[in-house]
Amino acid sequence: MTVRVNHQWRLATRPDGLVKETDFEWRQEPLPTPHHGQVLVRSLYLSLDPTNRSWLSDTRSYMPPVAIGEVMRGLAIGVVEQSHHADFKPGDIVQGMIGWQEYACMDGTGLTHLPNDTSLPLTAYLGPLGLVGPTAYFGLLDVGKPQARETLVVSAAAGAVGSLVGQIGKIKGCRVVGIAGSIEKCRWLTEELGFDAAINYKTESVHAGLQRHCPDGIDVFFDNVGGEILDTVLGLMNIRARVVICGFISQYNAVGPVPGPYNFNNIFTQRARVEGLLILDYLERFPEALTELSRWLTEGKLHYRIDLINGLENAPRALNRLFNGANNGKLIIGVTPEQ
Amino acid sequence: MTVRVNHQWRLATRPDGLVKETDFEWRQEPLPTPHHGQVLVRSLYLSLDPTNRSWLSDTRSYMPPVAIGEVMRGLAIGVVEQSHHADFKPGDIVQGMIGWQEYACMDGTGLTHLPNDTSLPLTAYLGPLGLVGPTAYFGLLDVGKPQARETLVVSAAAGAVGSLVGQIGKIKGCRVVGIAGSIEKCRWLTEELGFDAAINYKTESVHAGLQRHCPDGIDVFFDNVGGEILDTVLGLMNIRARVVICGFISQYNAVGPVPGPYNFNNIFTQRARVEGLLILDYLERFPEALTELSRWLTEGKLHYRIDLINGLENAPRALNRLFNGANNGKLIIGVTPEQ
Repeated sequence: MTVRVNHQWRLATRPDGLVKETDFEWRQEPLPTPHHGQVLVRSLYLSLDPTNRSWLSDTRSYMPPVAIGEVMRGLAIGVVEQSHHADFKPGDIVQGMIGWQEYACMDGTGLTHLPNDTSLPLTAYLGPLGLVGPTAYFGLLDVGKPQARETLVVSAAAGAVGSLVGQIGKIKGCRVVGIAGSIEKCRWLTEELGFDAAINYKTESVHAGLQRHCPDGIDVFFDNVGGEILDTVLGLMNIRARVVICGFISQYNAVGPVPGPYNFNNIFTQRARVEGLLILDYLERFPEALTELSRWLTEGKLHYRIDLINGLENAPRALNRLFNGANNGKLIIGVTPEQ
Repeated sequence: MTVRVNHQWRLATRPDGLVKETDFEWRQEPLPTPHHGQVLVRSLYLSLDPTNRSWLSDTRSYMPPVAIGEVMRGLAIGVVEQSHHADFKPGDIVQGMIGWQEYACMDGTGLTHLPNDTSLPLTAYLGPLGLVGPTAYFGLLDVGKPQARETLVVSAAAGAVGSLVGQIGKIKGCRVVGIAGSIEKCRWLTEELGFDAAINYKTESVHAGLQRHCPDGIDVFFDNVGGEILDTVLGLMNIRARVVICGFISQYNAVGPVPGPYNFNNIFTQRARVEGLLILDYLERFPEALTELSRWLTEGKLHYRIDLINGLENAPRALNRLFNGANNGKLIIGVTPEQ
């Protein structure tokens, strides 16, 4: 009998800038044994998200940083292999904070069942039907509150959240302009997702592009990146504009303090509203979002793509794809085989 | 018969930093003659407000800048001397954009009657019953939305708006901490206006003071100053904190672009809401605020002080009192005698 092992990535040191493999330790541990009240979960798909990088910095944030020596935190979909917990049985497909490892013993906290009668691939539950779908849904509709015929601008528009935000904006009757980092991404936005325009920030002036594509100014900005792009948009906001701060991808890898936008005072002159969105605040309202998102998916009104990279050993390098523009859609690590 | 003249301050050049007298031209013009549909108003009291400085810079703002050669824009209370307008008769006390001059011919646009059966001095109508009262009222209650027992922090707390904000906060049951620029101002806040604490930013660390006086964190920040104080408060906000951006006194005189707050990203991590307030958006709802403010004044729940400087010739120098901390209460220029 072969001894089964559990591969893990543990945090070795706090990264400086983009993560390096050496910031983590690749460990091989014995398979853990679940005790009373616990389940042993085998990870199938691990979600990689820009916010993962923020968990590595020892600064005040919405949750404590991952401690040195800890298994890297991560949301994943897994299958229950053994259960000593009344709510779970072997074979159940579950989602929870399994972390960057192949197996986890979990007590059920934060572990939820996924529906098993679905026609959708499991990876959809880390995409539009996972956290990113409700993030786009509540962030845009609850915080951004777009009205039909208003102009919505989305940054990181080809990303997992941004691409859904823009499509929901179109469903709600907005003019939608996306900002993304390649010709291919911009084409995907306008030709497949129905965005009215897309700006390639790597080759065009974002300011000039926004002036050209937003002839009536900007009413809602859904921002995932912060930094210069946020600053540029703040300079072009209409009166009573709304800015949804969903993240600041441009700054998670920053070394040292980063100043806020130079156009901050436009919040006053335009009587704008800038508001942060953390999807964890909306957990109780997830069914509302998931019902709508599922319907739009079924009706073909919502499209997404998955950027699947197989092999947990690739996780640190893959995380950087979210910051260097290499990813195409929702970034997911295939951890162990589905069957 | 002596020929009556109209003294005026006209803008001569765009100021660089604090205004200098030489940025304006002191002119003596013949008294204007009102035509059909016009009234001749003699100015009694001219309001000086931090935002006046923002009108001198040629940057995008909530109204166009004062043009070179124009009479400096300003809100004032005056008395109608001649009228060819059905709504006004000689002797009426009115308020409007008379500007930095002794007399103005006006067509009635934006000119409103003040009640003449009042027990309050006329200057109250440039203070709590003018624009600053409703600014404090709507800014705090409509935008800041404080709840009883929440902690409210106010910057420029001894100023015309800030002092009212703090008192309204106390009426609504908040813990109120003010930030001001002298021992005397801080004493006034705590000993006469009922603030729970006051921090002298010129002699104390604002960060340490806020940590000491806000043991439960900060729920609402009513900001008049921007800059470092705003940055410090953003670093201490509670989850779902609200920040009312009413102005940025620390930056109206800035030369060159000023970066936004380094703690901008806390808007995301704390899911805070930062919103600009311009009182001109609330003109239709003024009666609601004025009714409440009058009641609180009558009941002795609201106190204010007027910093009256006689002589229109002093206006440019007096404006700087709002930025160097010299003013004590609502700054008003006595232009011509009341009788």
